[in-house]
Order: sequence, then structure tokens, then C-alpha cells
Amino acid sequence: MLSVIKIGGNIIDNDLALKSFLKRFSEFPSPKILVHGGGKLATRLSEQLGIPTNMIDGRRVTDAPTLQIVTMVYAGWINKNITVGLQALNCNAFGLSGADGALIPAKKRSPIPMDFGFVGDINTDDIKYLDISKMLNSGQVPVFCSIAADGDGTLLNCNADTIASSIAIAMSKLMPVRLVFCFEKVGVLSDPEDNNSYIPSINKEQYNKLKEEGVITKGMIPKIDNAFKAIDCGVKEVHIKHADNLNNMFGTVFA
Amino acid sequence: MLSVIKIGGNIIDNDLALKSFLKRFSEFPSPKILVHGGGKLATRLSEQLGIPTNMIDGRRVTDAPTLQIVTMVYAGWINKNITVGLQALNCNAFGLSGADGALIPAKKRSPIPMDFGFVGDINTDDIKYLDISKMLNSGQVPVFCSIAADGDGTLLNCNADTIASSIAIAMSKLMPVRLVFCFEKVGVLSDPEDNNSYIPSINKEQYNKLKEEGVITKGMIPKIDNAFKAIDCGVKEVHIKHADNLNNMFGTVFA
Repeated sequence: MLSVIKIGGNIIDNDLALKSFLKRFSEFPSPKILVHGGGKLATRLSEQLGIPTNMIDGRRVTDAPTLQIVTMVYAGWINKNITVGLQALNCNAFGLSGADGALIPAKKRSPIPMDFGFVGDINTDDIKYLDISKMLNSGQVPVFCSIAADGDGTLLNCNADTIASSIAIAMSKLMPVRLVFCFEKVGVLSDPEDNNSYIPSINKEQYNKLKEEGVITKGMIPKIDNAFKAIDCGVKEVHIKHADNLNNMFGTVFA
Repeated sequence: MLSVIKIGGNIIDNDLALKSFLKRFSEFPSPKILVHGGGKLATRLSEQLGIPTNMIDGRRVTDAPTLQIVTMVYAGWINKNITVGLQALNCNAFGLSGADGALIPAKKRSPIPMDFGFVGDINTDDIKYLDISKMLNSGQVPVFCSIAADGDGTLLNCNADTIASSIAIAMSKLMPVRLVFCFEKVGVLSDPEDNNSYIPSINKEQYNKLKEEGVITKGMIPKIDNAFKAIDCGVKEVHIKHADNLNNMFGTVFA
């Protein structure tokens, strides 16, 4: 089974956490694909260069100078560092953006109702799953950042969760796929204050009930919707778990 | 015949020159590989961030902050921009650093006699020519920046001319290769002041004579040595020419 594993900025921002995650990822069974988010370096670099950072609903508004920053940081520094970090652990990592070989085609998001600038939405049906599959067959481990492009010469800043679920959905045309979102909690919690209260297995009915009861809070909803969407689109298993638990069974699995 | 084409910073720094070069490159017959240098953006960004730029003999000394800058600029912004610029011209460009899939393994240069910091020399014999060949067979057009890595987790800043000639030499194990260095002159000039005085074809004997006579000046010598080395190592054709002349016969060919 192919595993598509996503890590977020909170791991990337912490050298020790990243190092120990890469060790665990290198030990995880192949075939596998890593998708990484951005972290705070882009914001810090923008500050140093005097480029204002605008966020709407927690999402970065990507004007032209910001697109240059995130391309440099995500596709350049972070992607290549993760790639060589994994190689040092005998994992044949292959750093990629969605723009390379147009593997992950995207479309600039409509400026209505909200103009996010150079932000892209993924065309899941157009993902070049055969090219990605060839890489896996060669023993390569693709490592994707969240930069993609539109085919007309424009780079686009995309959501890393969506890149991961779109790749998982596209690869499901060829083989069974497991999608794993690693984040800073143990899983979906029935008590947001108690890290031990994670729900080992959740279905849509339970999810809707927990949403109604206000147990599942705003920040988790897009993540969980993404997880159920992946299941609906043919992904065999979806997990949300703490990065430390990548290689054990703790976490929430979606059914 | 496979063509490995190298462009330097002078083209990258000029939007119009780059745009018109990419058009010519997209029309150039496949299979083909592009290798690009850096340009002035790295120096400008270093200045803005207050990181001093140190050059020894025209080569950038790469300390840790400078390695971060060049990785962001070369492997991030420039590489991805060239990649999507070519895709918009229906060329299936695939942006790469030498670190990705460890395609171009390098070794940190000895600090003796001169410490250049994180600067790498290419292990030509270890270049993964079979993996690169698979990409060519899939109709992809590899676009390499000059960042590579040592396999132990360290990124290295390499010379783009050397990356190009090393790829050309490695690929010669599989197929006939043409290596083209594009630069700002029409070719090797017999009168450095007269752009029309280019030598259409040059062999080692003529080269040594022109060197003795002082006609070929210091800046050109490493370029020409690189060209003859490629010929000695099995590359079928080596050209030095102006980027504007990529698709015509003007330029110097090495024999």
C-alpha cells in the first residue's frame, strides 16, 4: 500500500522535531510520498525584507513579492533540506514542487469573494499519477512542497493538506493508498483539552454529531472534511495523528 | 543526439533575454537538458539581509547563510520560474537540483588551499545517468540548477559550467551528447575586441597557440578547458556560442 504522509509547519519550525520525524519517516515502509507545509521562515524572511504578511482566516494572501518568498523558502530551502536530510538516512528522497513536470496542475483561485492573490486550487483529475508512479517504481521517495503552477507560466501557492489529499486521491486510481496527516495532537479529540481523549475511529455520523455538540472546533473542521473527502474519492485509509506516532497505532482513523 | 545546454547569470538577470532564450530553447530539438547559473538575485538578497558577499577569484564563498540564500534563489525562485516559463511554451520542463534523487552527487571542496565553504565538486562517475535517461524517455526536459548535495545531509553550491559538462560526460555512456555553453559573446574570439572575429572551429593545438600568444584571456581559459575536457571524456560535440544563436550555426565548435 502506498502511504502519503503530510507534515505541517509546526514540525518544520522545530529542528529537533523535524530530525526525529525524518528518522521515523525513513523507517516507514515504502512506497511512500512526503508532503510538507511551510512554517514560519517565510513570515520571518518577509519581515526582514519589509514585505507585509497578510492573513485572511489563517491563510496567507500571496501577492507577487510573497509568491517569490514562499517559492524560495518552500520549494528551495525547506524542500531541499528535507530531501538531503532523508538521503542521509538512506531514503532515496526526490524533492519536488507540483510545478516540476507539471505533476500537480493547479488553477489560480477566483478573486471573488476574497482575493488571495497567487493561491492555487489543485486539479486532482490532472495530477500526473503515472509519472509519480514511475518514480515510486524506481525506488524514489517523492517529497512535495506546496508550490504548484497553472501551465501558463504562473507559480501558485497551494494548501499542503490539499496537495496531500489530492495526491492520495489521484494515486488511488493505480493502487491502494493510505493518507496520514501528522499534526500536533494525538488525533481527533472528544475533549479538546485532553490529549488522551482521542477517538480511535470516526465515521461521518459520529463526526456530524460531534460537530453539532460543539466538540469538534473550527480549526479541525477543514482537516476532517479533507479526510472524509479522500475516503469518498477512493483513498483506502485516512489517519490524523501526532508526528511522534507515525510508526505506531495511536491516532484517529477515518472510516 | 542529446543536447545539454547551459545558460549563465547574464541571461537570467535580463527578463527579455531570458524570455527570448526560453522560446529558442523550447524550439530546440529534444532530447535536451537545461542547466542554469545564478545571476545577481542572490547577491541582491544577501545585501538586503545584511549578509556579506565574499568572492575569491570571481567565485562566491558560500558560508551557511549564503548557502541558504543560494538554495532559495537558485533551486527555488529561478529554477521554478524557468520551469513554468518553459511549460507555457509547451516544453515539459522538470525543475531539479542535483540533490533531488541524489542525481548529481557532490563532495565538499577541501578548505586547503582556499576555503570556499559549502562549495561542491561533482562526482561525475556517480551521476545517476540511468534515472536522468528515464526522465528523457518519458518526454521530460530536466532543468538543473547548480545546487547539489553530498549524501550526508549537506547541500553544496556548485559551478554551473561544471554541472553541465559533468552531466554531458555522464550521459555519453548511454547516447551521443552535444554540450552547448551559451554566453554573452559569439564564440572564442581571435580578437577579444571584435565580436565578429570568432573562431568557428578550434582544436587543442590552436588553443595552446592562442593561449601562448595571449589572444585567449584569463576569463575564457576555465570555460575552454571545460570544453576540451568534455571532448576528452566522450562528449561528441562541444559548442560555445551566444544565447541568441542557439538555433543557428554561429559559434565556436571544439574538435
